[in-house]
Amino acid sequence: MSKIVIYPGTFDPITFGHLDVIQRAADLFDKVVVAVLENAAKTPLFTMDERVDLIKKAVENFSNVEVDIFHGLLIDYAKSKNAIAIIRGLRAISDFEYEFQMALMNRKISEGITTVFLMPHEKYTYLNSTIVRELARLQADVSDFVPKFVVDKLTNKFKKA
Amino acid sequence: MSKIVIYPGTFDPITFGHLDVIQRAADLFDKVVVAVLENAAKTPLFTMDERVDLIKKAVENFSNVEVDIFHGLLIDYAKSKNAIAIIRGLRAISDFEYEFQMALMNRKISEGITTVFLMPHEKYTYLNSTIVRELARLQADVSDFVPKFVVDKLTNKFKKA
Amino acid sequence: MSKIVIYPGTFDPITFGHLDVIQRAADLFDKVVVAVLENAAKTPLFTMDERVDLIKKAVENFSNVEVDIFHGLLIDYAKSKNAIAIIRGLRAISDFEYEFQMALMNRKISEGITTVFLMPHEKYTYLNSTIVRELARLQADVSDFVPKFVVDKLTNKFKKA
Amino acid sequence: MSKIVIYPGTFDPITFGHLDVIQRAADLFDKVVVAVLENAAKTPLFTMDERVDLIKKAVENFSNVEVDIFHGLLIDYAKSKNAIAIIRGLRAISDFEYEFQMALMNRKISEGITTVFLMPHEKYTYLNSTIVRELARLQADVSDFVPKFVVDKLTNKFKKA
Amino acid sequence: MSKIVIYPGTFDPITFGHLDVIQRAADLFDKVVVAVLENAAKTPLFTMDERVDLIKKAVENFSNVEVDIFHGLLIDYAKSKNAIAIIRGLRAISDFEYEFQMALMNRKISEGITTVFLMPHEKYTYLNSTIVRELARLQADVSDFVPKFVVDKLTNKFKKA
Amino acid sequence: MSKIVIYPGTFDPITFGHLDVIQRAADLFDKVVVAVLENAAKTPLFTMDERVDLIKKAVENFSNVEVDIFHGLLIDYAKSKNAIAIIRGLRAISDFEYEFQMALMNRKISEGITTVFLMPHEKYTYLNSTIVRELARLQADVSDFVPKFVVDKLTNKFKKA
Repeated sequence: MSKIVIYPGTFDPITFGHLDVIQRAADLFDKVVVAVLENAAKTPLFTMDERVDLIKKAVENFSNVEVDIFHGLLIDYAKSKNAIAIIRGLRAISDFEYEFQMALMNRKISEGITTVFLMPHEKYTYLNSTIVRELARLQADVSDFVPKFVVDKLTNKFKKA
Repeated sequence: MSKIVIYPGTFDPITFGHLDVIQRAADLFDKVVVAVLENAAKTPLFTMDERVDLIKKAVENFSNVEVDIFHGLLIDYAKSKNAIAIIRGLRAISDFEYEFQMALMNRKISEGITTVFLMPHEKYTYLNSTIVRELARLQADVSDFVPKFVVDKLTNKFKKA
Repeated sequence: MSKIVIYPGTFDPITFGHLDVIQRAADLFDKVVVAVLENAAKTPLFTMDERVDLIKKAVENFSNVEVDIFHGLLIDYAKSKNAIAIIRGLRAISDFEYEFQMALMNRKISEGITTVFLMPHEKYTYLNSTIVRELARLQADVSDFVPKFVVDKLTNKFKKA
Repeated sequence: MSKIVIYPGTFDPITFGHLDVIQRAADLFDKVVVAVLENAAKTPLFTMDERVDLIKKAVENFSNVEVDIFHGLLIDYAKSKNAIAIIRGLRAISDFEYEFQMALMNRKISEGITTVFLMPHEKYTYLNSTIVRELARLQADVSDFVPKFVVDKLTNKFKKA
Repeated sequence: MSKIVIYPGTFDPITFGHLDVIQRAADLFDKVVVAVLENAAKTPLFTMDERVDLIKKAVENFSNVEVDIFHGLLIDYAKSKNAIAIIRGLRAISDFEYEFQMALMNRKISEGITTVFLMPHEKYTYLNSTIVRELARLQADVSDFVPKFVVDKLTNKFKKA
Repeated sequence: MSKIVIYPGTFDPITFGHLDVIQRAADLFDKVVVAVLENAAKTPLFTMDERVDLIKKAVENFSNVEVDIFHGLLIDYAKSKNAIAIIRGLRAISDFEYEFQMALMNRKISEGITTVFLMPHEKYTYLNSTIVRELARLQADVSDFVPKFVVDKLTNKFKKA
């Protein structure tokens, strides 16, 4: 039976840290579904369509990675995809706390799914999308943190703004 | 002299984690005042009246627990109640930081009051009201986390919404 | 019914941090038993008799504190004393981890006993017996950390050595 | 290609926390090698033969788990087994630090292997072999923490001692 | 060559914790520039002019401290000032995480600048501007946390409100 | 007045992480004294003479770094050198705790000296001498972690052993 895993997130925008985790997951499992969260509560910088497009471009060389949208309960979504695990990137302590909380809550609701924590390369330890957006807003060079076509999109966003 | 303690919080809504702490405090001290915070800055899901009602129902079998409302400075409120201590539930690291900060600040202002940290059962380690509200909003079953009559209230809230 | 609590430790030697916790516990409960651990695995600097004597001298002004020796399982000892809780001083993160671990293990074995965490004054946040011994060994002045008669005992120990 | 993973440790003795991690790993991957560390520096309570026997008994119902001994560098051993990942159980913060350190050091030496962190059930969050040995030495009941045949072995050890 | 350092922040308002860090930095380096952040995203309690005035009053006895305003990227600002380092006060774990993240991001963008962490006195370990504002709003006495002229300004703010 | 700082440690052996901290300190201050600790309690892998020689070789290109030996109380030693600060490398959380403890204890004894925390490059975040010794003992290649002449010394040590 094919081993399918879900890598959920907001990806606003996708970073090299996310890609490092996707690469590792794609090596370990048969299929990785990058599941972009539709979150009514927060206004993202990039629209859902833009975020999905940027991820698709970033993963186009992986044969076993697909990109999808989800809303509602992660655990229900994971079941609908026949996933055996949820992938989370672990960076630092603050992450760790939150991720544990989420993983345990998911488990309470559905014992049949496991959370797998993967550690991105240490050069991405302190990288996240919020910082990338903040740096881009201040016109800093973010090409060490996101792919070239994301840099361009960010530059555009903050030109218009 | 009767040993009175205060257990302050927002309780939006009360969870099994809170109840576990209340149970322990009720065993250790003569009287426990569950003090619900009137917080102008945040809009709670449940009104003050609803929150107080849910707590009253949840603690109706405890003979030495009462429910009250407070606003203003916790330390002044505690003194007005002749309390000897403030009870806090300790869950995980992030809690720990914040609780320490609050406890020390309270102490600076009033040396005569101590903060007592109680640890809820480990099955509630990662439980909090925010997560319960989020799960209920997504129509997840939260009956492992809150009493039956709170489940019903949450179901109602998110039906109307 | 009288509320008895146990404050266990090695107390090698007792510090102002320990005394701060004892003071708080004595205010909150009817009786505090300071229980000195007989630990076959470690060689303490002070003998059991010396440690007990130093604690007795340090707590002689408290009417509801007694000093005792224990070996074996803390939870069995606590029951034999009709204690309703175990007191632990919480200092910093590393403590927190270890104390949680111990508290949960104790609870697994005996649901009927609770661990109560008290926070010493922030000026004692980073104080422990190991550091006091190390500083005394290096002839540093430790009179900010331990009572005068403990300073004298330490000076003696490291003169003889 | 078959996905093989290594779960290394001292297992002195194996606990329900370890078994929970093994169960999860066995669901996620094609083969799990439980690799018992021959560590010259520490004297374990159980001999290597005893530890291997206890693990074998504990995993006898898993068709895709095998038990092996290793010494030397974990990364070399993993390669010799054609493993694609090393499995580590994540419990609490202190673990997290150490595990990160080890995972990064392994990666420096061999980029081709990933560390996968799995979280045992929260009821095992604070469980480890050291605590089990300590509790057994003090004649506490450890049957909530280790399988029945490990309880018996521990009872024997501490009768003889 | 003169050693110039930057101490950036929002200072809404300046506290004794900040002043303790400024004092230490002024002893270690030739010049300290306290750089107040113009942050479009947050509405501070005090205007930029008020914050700068309060800092200037607080540091008027230091001969090698100046106060300045900055917006944009911290690293660009530091370079324009010929600074060799950025000063950060380290308080507790949550700080530590965030500060590491910021320091590493700054380094990625400009290898030539170092972040220097100074630890304020332990009595300020849990002090920050947010707590001071909250306490002042509730009419608590904050004279242990901020200079007298800041107390007065806070009292004024919350009288008008 | 010349700004002198002390960088104390065991340096058993010196690593690239230490050198990264020394480099930063040498840029910030007029003179850096690398002070090697004579510790009667632990048996180091390298003798004091060997450790001093390796550090001297490693810092020979810095004009303002000197190497020295100390025993006794760090704070007394720092004063005897007219140092204005003690330098510590901050790596991860566990470090942080210990370093805070030490820094506060030093401050209690001598208010006139400050601890300055510098963060090594993130690629050295999880590097320490213990891990280097352990890897070398297992014949792993440690040339990413220590200078070439330290690699050779380590290879020799573990050949003889």
